[in-house]
Amino acid sequence: MQRSLTQNSNLPYAKYMQLATARADGRPAARTVVFRGFLDGSDHLTFVTDRRSRKVSELADNPHVEVCWYFPTSREQFRLSGTAHIVALDHPHQQLLAARQQAWAAMSDAGRSQFLWPEPGQPRMPMDESLFLVPAPDTAGQAVDNFCLGVIHVHEVDHVDLFANKRAVFTSSQEQHEEQESSSSSRTWAVENVNP
Amino acid sequence: MQRSLTQNSNLPYAKYMQLATARADGRPAARTVVFRGFLDGSDHLTFVTDRRSRKVSELADNPHVEVCWYFPTSREQFRLSGTAHIVALDHPHQQLLAARQQAWAAMSDAGRSQFLWPEPGQPRMPMDESLFLVPAPDTAGQAVDNFCLGVIHVHEVDHVDLFANKRAVFTSSQEQHEEQESSSSSRTWAVENVNP
Repeated sequence: MQRSLTQNSNLPYAKYMQLATARADGRPAARTVVFRGFLDGSDHLTFVTDRRSRKVSELADNPHVEVCWYFPTSREQFRLSGTAHIVALDHPHQQLLAARQQAWAAMSDAGRSQFLWPEPGQPRMPMDESLFLVPAPDTAGQAVDNFCLGVIHVHEVDHVDLFANKRAVFTSSQEQHEEQESSSSSRTWAVENVNP
Repeated sequence: MQRSLTQNSNLPYAKYMQLATARADGRPAARTVVFRGFLDGSDHLTFVTDRRSRKVSELADNPHVEVCWYFPTSREQFRLSGTAHIVALDHPHQQLLAARQQAWAAMSDAGRSQFLWPEPGQPRMPMDESLFLVPAPDTAGQAVDNFCLGVIHVHEVDHVDLFANKRAVFTSSQEQHEEQESSSSSRTWAVENVNP
């Protein structure tokens, strides 16, 4: 994946991946999120989200996700299935809270401002327009309450290379240890070549 | 959406959209599919798929889908939620069978060949390598048995414009008529501007 990110780094939106979740009623949901790097040295993917976003409540009910990530330059698709959880301001794990703060500091001014906007998905009110013009909170300060880090534990990777017409499925041996947050945990991956 | 397709037509992969479904066990799934146009004059989106693909069985169990479609040039995201169904060779509806045959004729040689390849997702066998080199079936002939047309009936559209920081949700008034295949059925859409 690192290689694909490098090969596609000429396209800024190659960092955009689609995150699928299940709604409470069993219907699927999918939206674009920006890949914010791997959690310190681990193979867990991170993204950021607003605490008021629907995906936060969906993940609380059903943590299963699939990420679909297409790289236009190298014509590769990665499907990453696993579980995701949300690191909010009151998360008990200090290491994850530090990662949340780090993600906040790495956001652009425009990105940080959005977390102070009126509630996403609610009707837009003319009287609220000035609220979309709030100055960006300081990078150096504490992450605002609505800011959350999402952490994805990948259990299986389905990789398709459309140039070579090759497909391989990688399965993690440590699905059962998904609660472990230690970034030093080592995982082994089994690989199988399958028909594209 | 037509306008977005035109604005982004410099990027061939702007026709790639992510289709999310629910697996039988309630976990979400997502993969990239190519948009193959609207079903004759309607607002139903089409894609093609192999009958042996996992999404075909997922949709038979749970027809609910969400399409996530990101347009890099115009920085817009469309989330289209609705239901999808599969038009296979034995579909009872003649108009849909004709649309399937039309989609087959519009495929590239490489695209048509794939439907004769060994079963997608099964272990790749060295002895099968020659099967990936089959010549493309004739465009003029009948679509091969594995070839299916997917038809998406959209009930709700969530449109985000990242340039303008605007978001609108469009809801169809005819969700209850989803079985109607008539391309002439008129639908009205309610629109609400919401916070991005």
